[in-house]
Amino acid sequence: MTDRYFFNIDDLTMGEARQLAEGVNTRIFLGENVMLSVVTIDPNCEGKPHSHPEEQWGLVLKGGGVRLQGGIDHAVSIGDFWHTPGGVTHSFRAGPQGVTVLDVFSPPRAPYRGPGKGFGD
Amino acid sequence: MTDRYFFNIDDLTMGEARQLAEGVNTRIFLGENVMLSVVTIDPNCEGKPHSHPEEQWGLVLKGGGVRLQGGIDHAVSIGDFWHTPGGVTHSFRAGPQGVTVLDVFSPPRAPYRGPGKGFGD
Repeated sequence: MTDRYFFNIDDLTMGEARQLAEGVNTRIFLGENVMLSVVTIDPNCEGKPHSHPEEQWGLVLKGGGVRLQGGIDHAVSIGDFWHTPGGVTHSFRAGPQGVTVLDVFSPPRAPYRGPGKGFGD
Repeated sequence: MTDRYFFNIDDLTMGEARQLAEGVNTRIFLGENVMLSVVTIDPNCEGKPHSHPEEQWGLVLKGGGVRLQGGIDHAVSIGDFWHTPGGVTHSFRAGPQGVTVLDVFSPPRAPYRGPGKGFGD
Protein backbone atom coordinates (compact mmCIF):
# COMPACT_ATOMS: atom_id res chain seq x y z
CA MET A 1 0.00 0.00 0.00
CA THR A 2 1.34 3.41 -0.86
CA ASP A 3 -1.24 5.55 0.89
CA ARG A 4 0.56 7.60 3.53
CA TYR A 5 -2.14 6.83 6.09
CA PHE A 6 -1.69 3.04 5.88
CA PHE A 7 0.98 1.04 7.70
CA ASN A 8 1.89 -2.47 8.81
CA ILE A 9 3.04 -3.73 12.19
CA ASP A 10 5.83 -5.82 10.63
CA ASP A 11 7.16 -3.25 8.15
CA LEU A 12 10.29 -2.01 9.87
CA THR A 13 10.71 0.81 7.34
CA MET A 14 7.61 2.52 8.75
CA GLY A 15 7.51 4.84 11.73
CA GLU A 16 10.26 6.65 13.64
CA ALA A 17 12.60 4.05 15.15
CA ARG A 18 13.60 4.52 18.80
CA GLN A 19 15.56 2.31 21.22
CA LEU A 20 13.89 2.48 24.63
CA ALA A 21 16.39 0.18 26.38
CA GLU A 22 18.72 -2.72 25.58
CA GLY A 23 16.54 -5.20 23.67
CA VAL A 24 13.52 -2.86 23.80
CA ASN A 25 12.83 -1.11 20.49
CA THR A 26 9.89 0.77 19.07
CA ARG A 27 8.61 2.56 16.01
CA ILE A 28 6.53 5.67 16.60
CA PHE A 29 3.50 6.76 14.54
CA LEU A 30 2.23 10.24 15.29
CA GLY A 31 -1.27 11.60 14.84
CA GLU A 32 -2.83 14.75 16.20
CA ASN A 33 -4.20 13.46 19.52
CA VAL A 34 -2.86 9.91 19.41
CA MET A 35 0.64 8.43 19.23
CA LEU A 36 1.08 4.75 18.46
CA SER A 37 4.23 2.87 19.47
CA VAL A 38 4.92 -0.62 18.08
CA VAL A 39 7.27 -2.05 20.68
CA THR A 40 9.32 -5.23 20.28
CA ILE A 41 11.07 -6.63 23.35
CA ASP A 42 13.68 -9.35 22.93
CA PRO A 43 13.27 -12.60 24.91
CA ASN A 44 13.63 -12.05 28.65
CA CYS A 45 14.47 -8.36 28.26
CA GLU A 46 12.61 -5.58 30.02
CA GLY A 47 12.22 -1.83 30.22
CA LYS A 48 12.72 0.16 33.37
CA PRO A 49 9.72 1.04 35.54
CA HIS A 50 8.60 4.59 34.77
CA SER A 51 5.54 6.80 34.66
CA HIS A 52 4.33 9.82 32.72
CA PRO A 53 1.27 12.06 32.78
CA GLU A 54 -0.03 10.86 29.39
CA GLU A 55 -2.77 8.20 29.31
CA GLN A 56 -1.60 4.90 27.82
CA TRP A 57 -3.18 1.68 26.54
CA GLY A 58 -1.26 -1.47 25.55
CA LEU A 59 -2.14 -4.60 23.56
CA VAL A 60 -0.09 -7.78 23.07
CA LEU A 61 0.17 -8.54 19.35
CA LYS A 62 2.74 -11.37 19.51
CA GLY A 63 4.38 -13.44 22.24
CA GLY A 64 3.85 -12.51 25.85
CA GLY A 65 5.38 -11.66 29.16
CA VAL A 66 4.66 -9.78 32.34
CA ARG A 67 3.13 -6.30 32.54
CA LEU A 68 4.18 -4.65 35.78
CA GLN A 69 1.64 -2.02 36.67
CA GLY A 70 0.53 -0.48 39.92
CA GLY A 71 2.95 -2.69 41.83
CA ILE A 72 1.47 -5.94 40.50
CA ASP A 73 2.82 -8.45 37.95
CA HIS A 74 0.24 -9.35 35.29
CA ALA A 75 1.04 -12.29 33.00
CA VAL A 76 -0.23 -11.34 29.53
CA SER A 77 -0.32 -12.92 26.09
CA ILE A 78 -1.79 -12.29 22.63
CA GLY A 79 -5.09 -10.41 22.80
CA ASP A 80 -4.66 -9.11 26.34
CA PHE A 81 -4.81 -5.34 26.66
CA TRP A 82 -4.74 -2.82 29.47
CA HIS A 83 -5.37 0.77 30.43
CA THR A 84 -2.64 2.73 32.17
CA PRO A 85 -3.91 6.06 33.49
CA GLY A 86 -1.40 8.89 33.67
CA GLY A 87 0.96 8.74 36.62
CA VAL A 88 0.82 4.96 37.14
CA THR A 89 4.26 3.32 37.28
CA HIS A 90 4.68 0.51 34.74
CA SER A 91 7.13 -1.62 32.78
CA PHE A 92 7.15 -4.82 30.74
CA ARG A 93 9.30 -7.95 30.94
CA ALA A 94 9.19 -10.18 27.87
CA GLY A 95 8.84 -13.93 28.18
CA PRO A 96 11.20 -16.44 26.57
CA GLN A 97 9.72 -15.83 23.10
CA GLY A 98 9.81 -12.04 23.28
CA VAL A 99 6.81 -9.82 22.76
CA THR A 100 5.33 -7.25 20.39
CA VAL A 101 3.09 -4.67 22.07
CA LEU A 102 1.03 -1.88 20.55
CA ASP A 103 1.11 1.11 22.89
CA VAL A 104 -1.34 3.98 22.48
CA PHE A 105 -0.61 7.37 24.04
CA SER A 106 -2.89 10.39 24.34
CA PRO A 107 -1.83 13.07 24.29
CA PRO A 108 1.29 12.11 22.30
CA ARG A 109 4.39 11.79 24.49
CA ALA A 110 6.57 14.83 23.80
CA PRO A 111 9.96 13.04 24.08
CA TYR A 112 8.92 10.52 21.41
CA ARG A 113 8.05 13.18 18.84
CA GLY A 114 11.60 13.36 17.52
CA PRO A 115 14.70 11.16 17.22
CA GLY A 116 16.40 9.92 20.36
CA LYS A 117 16.60 6.97 22.72
CA GLY A 118 15.33 6.00 26.12
CA PHE A 119 11.96 6.36 27.82
CA GLY A 120 12.25 10.13 27.97
CA ASP A 121 11.66 10.48 31.68
CA MET B 1 -7.08 -11.48 35.41
CA THR B 2 -9.26 -9.58 37.80
CA ASP B 3 -7.57 -6.18 37.68
CA ARG B 4 -10.10 -3.67 36.38
CA TYR B 5 -7.53 -2.16 34.04
CA PHE B 6 -6.86 -5.44 32.20
CA PHE B 7 -9.00 -6.84 29.36
CA ASN B 8 -8.93 -9.34 26.49
CA ILE B 9 -9.96 -8.89 22.89
CA ASP B 10 -11.90 -12.19 22.87
CA ASP B 11 -13.69 -11.81 26.20
CA LEU B 12 -17.19 -10.80 25.15
CA THR B 13 -18.19 -9.99 28.73
CA MET B 14 -15.82 -7.01 28.71
CA GLY B 15 -16.63 -3.54 27.41
CA GLU B 16 -19.93 -1.87 26.51
CA ALA B 17 -21.57 -3.83 23.67
CA ARG B 18 -22.95 -1.82 20.73
CA GLN B 19 -24.39 -2.87 17.37
CA LEU B 20 -23.14 -0.48 14.71
CA ALA B 21 -25.01 -2.11 11.81
CA GLU B 22 -26.34 -5.52 10.78
CA GLY B 23 -23.40 -7.88 11.28
CA VAL B 24 -21.19 -5.09 12.65
CA ASN B 25 -20.74 -5.21 16.41
CA THR B 26 -18.36 -3.63 18.84
CA ARG B 27 -17.38 -3.44 22.48
CA ILE B 28 -16.34 -0.04 23.80
CA PHE B 29 -13.60 0.62 26.36
CA LEU B 30 -13.44 4.16 27.67
CA GLY B 31 -10.45 6.01 29.07
CA GLU B 32 -9.97 9.71 29.69
CA ASN B 33 -8.57 10.80 26.32
CA VAL B 34 -8.83 7.51 24.43
CA MET B 35 -11.73 5.24 23.51
CA LEU B 36 -11.04 1.74 22.19
CA SER B 37 -13.59 -0.12 20.08
CA VAL B 38 -13.13 -3.84 19.38
CA VAL B 39 -15.18 -4.30 16.22
CA THR B 40 -16.20 -7.64 14.72
CA ILE B 41 -17.73 -7.65 11.25
CA ASP B 42 -19.41 -10.79 9.95
CA PRO B 43 -18.27 -12.24 6.61
CA ASN B 44 -19.08 -9.94 3.68
CA CYS B 45 -20.90 -7.42 5.90
CA GLU B 46 -20.06 -3.75 6.00
CA GLY B 47 -20.78 -0.53 7.85
CA LYS B 48 -22.08 2.60 6.19
CA PRO B 49 -19.64 5.28 5.08
CA HIS B 50 -19.51 8.06 7.67
CA SER B 51 -17.21 10.63 9.19
CA HIS B 52 -16.75 12.38 12.52
CA PRO B 53 -14.49 15.08 13.89
CA GLU B 54 -12.61 12.70 16.23
CA GLU B 55 -9.25 11.31 15.15
CA GLN B 56 -9.30 7.54 14.58
CA TRP B 57 -6.78 4.75 14.08
CA GLY B 58 -7.63 1.15 13.11
CA LEU B 59 -5.71 -2.16 13.22
CA VAL B 60 -6.73 -5.53 11.81
CA LEU B 61 -6.45 -8.19 14.53
CA LYS B 62 -8.11 -11.10 12.70
CA GLY B 63 -9.32 -11.80 9.16
CA GLY B 64 -9.38 -9.01 6.63
CA GLY B 65 -11.36 -7.02 4.15
CA VAL B 66 -11.46 -3.63 2.52
CA ARG B 67 -11.01 -0.31 4.28
CA LEU B 68 -12.76 2.41 2.32
CA GLN B 69 -11.14 5.71 3.18
CA GLY B 70 -10.80 8.98 1.31
CA GLY B 71 -12.64 7.52 -1.65
CA ILE B 72 -10.18 4.64 -2.12
CA ASP B 73 -10.56 0.90 -1.40
CA HIS B 74 -7.62 -0.48 0.59
CA ALA B 75 -7.34 -4.27 0.93
CA VAL B 76 -6.13 -4.96 4.47
CA SER B 77 -5.30 -8.02 6.56
CA ILE B 78 -3.77 -8.90 9.94
CA GLY B 79 -1.17 -6.39 11.04
CA ASP B 80 -2.26 -3.60 8.72
CA PHE B 81 -3.21 -0.37 10.44
CA TRP B 82 -4.23 3.11 9.39
CA HIS B 83 -4.73 6.68 10.51
CA THR B 84 -8.04 8.39 9.83
CA PRO B 85 -7.87 12.10 10.58
CA GLY B 86 -11.09 13.76 11.70
CA GLY B 87 -13.56 14.51 8.93
CA VAL B 88 -12.38 11.80 6.52
CA THR B 89 -15.20 9.57 5.25
CA HIS B 90 -14.60 5.87 5.89
CA SER B 91 -16.17 2.44 6.21
CA PHE B 92 -15.12 -1.21 6.27
CA ARG B 93 -16.28 -4.22 4.27
CA ALA B 94 -15.31 -7.60 5.72
CA GLY B 95 -13.92 -10.34 3.51
CA PRO B 96 -15.34 -13.87 3.35
CA GLN B 97 -13.81 -14.78 6.74
CA GLY B 98 -14.99 -11.68 8.56
CA VAL B 99 -12.71 -9.32 10.42
CA THR B 100 -11.83 -8.07 13.90
CA VAL B 101 -10.56 -4.49 14.03
CA LEU B 102 -9.27 -2.46 16.94
CA ASP B 103 -10.39 1.16 16.54
CA VAL B 104 -8.84 3.93 18.59
CA PHE B 105 -10.64 7.27 18.99
CA SER B 106 -9.34 10.50 20.52
CA PRO B 107 -11.10 12.31 21.87
CA PRO B 108 -13.65 9.60 22.79
CA ARG B 109 -16.69 9.62 20.50
CA ALA B 110 -19.59 11.09 22.50
CA PRO B 111 -22.35 8.84 21.03
CA TYR B 112 -20.41 5.71 22.07
CA ARG B 113 -20.13 6.74 25.72
CA GLY B 114 -23.45 5.17 26.62
CA PRO B 115 -25.75 2.38 25.48
CA GLY B 116 -27.29 2.55 22.01
CA LYS B 117 -26.85 1.36 18.46
CA GLY B 118 -25.62 2.70 15.16
CA PHE B 119 -22.65 4.84 14.20
CA GLY B 120 -24.01 7.87 16.02
CA ASP B 121 -23.89 10.26 13.10
